[in-house]
Amino acid sequence: MKKIRAAIVGYGNIGHYTLQALQAAPDFEIAGIVRRNGAENKPEELANYPVVKDIRELQDVDVAILATPTRKVEEYAKDILALGINTVDSFDIHTQITSLRRSLNESAKAGNAVSIISAGWDPGSDSIVRTMLEAIAPKGITYTNFGPGMSMGHTVAVKAIEGVKAALSMTIPTGTGIHRRMVYIEVEEGYEFEKVAAAIKADAYFVNDETHVIQVPCVDDLLDMGHGVNLTRKGVSGTTQNQLFEFNMRINNPALTAQVLVCVARASMKQQPGCYTMVEIPVIDLLYGEREELIAHLV
Amino acid sequence: MKKIRAAIVGYGNIGHYTLQALQAAPDFEIAGIVRRNGAENKPEELANYPVVKDIRELQDVDVAILATPTRKVEEYAKDILALGINTVDSFDIHTQITSLRRSLNESAKAGNAVSIISAGWDPGSDSIVRTMLEAIAPKGITYTNFGPGMSMGHTVAVKAIEGVKAALSMTIPTGTGIHRRMVYIEVEEGYEFEKVAAAIKADAYFVNDETHVIQVPCVDDLLDMGHGVNLTRKGVSGTTQNQLFEFNMRINNPALTAQVLVCVARASMKQQPGCYTMVEIPVIDLLYGEREELIAHLV
Repeated sequence: MKKIRAAIVGYGNIGHYTLQALQAAPDFEIAGIVRRNGAENKPEELANYPVVKDIRELQDVDVAILATPTRKVEEYAKDILALGINTVDSFDIHTQITSLRRSLNESAKAGNAVSIISAGWDPGSDSIVRTMLEAIAPKGITYTNFGPGMSMGHTVAVKAIEGVKAALSMTIPTGTGIHRRMVYIEVEEGYEFEKVAAAIKADAYFVNDETHVIQVPCVDDLLDMGHGVNLTRKGVSGTTQNQLFEFNMRINNPALTAQVLVCVARASMKQQPGCYTMVEIPVIDLLYGEREELIAHLV
Repeated sequence: MKKIRAAIVGYGNIGHYTLQALQAAPDFEIAGIVRRNGAENKPEELANYPVVKDIRELQDVDVAILATPTRKVEEYAKDILALGINTVDSFDIHTQITSLRRSLNESAKAGNAVSIISAGWDPGSDSIVRTMLEAIAPKGITYTNFGPGMSMGHTVAVKAIEGVKAALSMTIPTGTGIHRRMVYIEVEEGYEFEKVAAAIKADAYFVNDETHVIQVPCVDDLLDMGHGVNLTRKGVSGTTQNQLFEFNMRINNPALTAQVLVCVARASMKQQPGCYTMVEIPVIDLLYGEREELIAHLV
C-alpha cells in the first residue's frame, strides 16, 4: 500500500501532537516538518525526519498539515496549494470561514489540489454534529457550551493588557451557550491588581460576559490542556415536538485537534480539487480501511 | 425553485410520520402515496394527494421514500430504481447492510438513479456519530446503549409465542451495550403465565439477555413511541489516552426515522448514481438551503 506523505507546517503545540497522530496512523508517512528555524535546535523527537524552512525542500509531499497560527493559514495554504499539494488546517475564526473557503477554493482548483479548512473540534467535529442535528430536527435551538477549558483567544487578550505578567482565561459553561470567564493572572510589579482587573473586565473580549479576575502566584501551575463541549438541541422532527439531543466531550484539546487534522489529511486524498469544510465531506472518508468493512462495522 | 417530488411507499406508522415531515419541508412536494389498498378507505389526511397501488400511476416522481417493512425494501427499491426514480429506506438489519448496498448499487447505476439505504437513527444518524468518533479517537471502544424504548423486533418475537395474546418488549440500557428486556404480556385464556414466561425467556431473542416477563391486564395502555440512545466512546487521539465522548437522544422513534428519511431523500438529489449509506454522504447535503449560508451558520 502506498502511504500518504504528509508534511507538518509549524511545530508548536498542535504540530507536536500532529507528529504523534501521524506516527500512530497506519497509512501515513512523515515527509518532514517545516519550521521557521529549520533544523536549528532540532528537538529530539524529530531526529529521524527532515526539518526544513520551506516545504519545497521536502520530497513528494501529498498533503501539508498546517499547524500554524490561524491568521497565517491563508498565506501558507495559497503558497502550498499552488505547488499541487493538498492542505488542511484548523482555522478557527468562525466569521471568516466562508471567505477563506472561497479564496482557497480558487487556489485549490488552480493547483489541482484539495484544501479542507476549519478542521478541528469547533469548528470541525462539532460542526458535523450541529449540521446533523439541524437536519434530523429542522426546527429548534442548538446550544454549544464550551469548557471547562482554557480559551487561547481570551488568554492572549488578557496578556495584552498593561500590568499583566502572566494569564490564563478559563471558559466555564453556564448553559444555553452562555459562558463565565475565570481569569487567573500574575500582576507586574508596580501595578495594582484592582486596576488591572477592571481593565480586563472592560476589554471587548470580556465586557459582555460574567468575568472573574483572580490573582495567583504562578499561572503556570494552573495550566491544563483538557477541554470540554456540551452541545444540545431540542427541536421538532416533522411536526413532533420535544426531540432531545446532546453531545458531550471531555478531551485533551491539542491532541484532538491534531487527530482531526490527520483524519482530514486522509480525506483530502479522496476529494475532487477544491476547498471544503468538514460538513462537506463524507465522514467515512475520515477513516483508514476498506470501505465495505467499515460500513459493516460502523453503520 | 423547483420542488423535489416525493412518493411515500407504504403507509403504516413511518409512512404517516413521513407525510408530516414532507409537509413541513419547504423544498418538497408530495407526488402521492403508494399503498397495497390504493385509494380504498383513504384516510382523511390523504384527501389532497393521489393514493395509488403502483408508483407508475404517479406523475414525475423524483424520489420514493420506502416506508415498507424492512424485508420488503430490496424488492421495492429494485423495481423503483429501474424506473430511474431515487429510493431511500431505513433498512435496519445491521448484518445485511453491505449486501443490500451491493445489490442496490447495481440497480441504481443501471437505472441512472440514487439509493440511500439504512437511513433511520440506528442504523443512520447514530452511524454518523460512531464513524466520526472512531475517526477522531481511532483506538478505543464505542458502546451504543438503546432505550428505554419499545423494540419492534423483540415485540414481534414475543407475539409469536403460544399463549401470548398481546405483548410489548421494552429495551432497557444497563450500560456497555448490554440491555435488559422488560416484557409485558397479556396471556390467552387457558394458558399458564409461568409457562408462557419460561417459553419467552428461552426464545433465541431473549435467551442471552436479562429478561423479565410481567403479566398486565392491557398492553395497549403501556404503549409509548418514545425511545433513546446513549452512545459512548473512550479512546485515544494520537497517543493521548482517555478522550471521552457521549451522544444522547430522547426522541419519538417513528417521527425521527421519518425525518431522517426526508433528509436523505433531499440528499439523494445531490449524489452520483449508485447506492450509499448515510456515512458516505456529506452531512450538509441533508439540509435545505444555500450552501454558503449553511456553512456560515453551522460550521
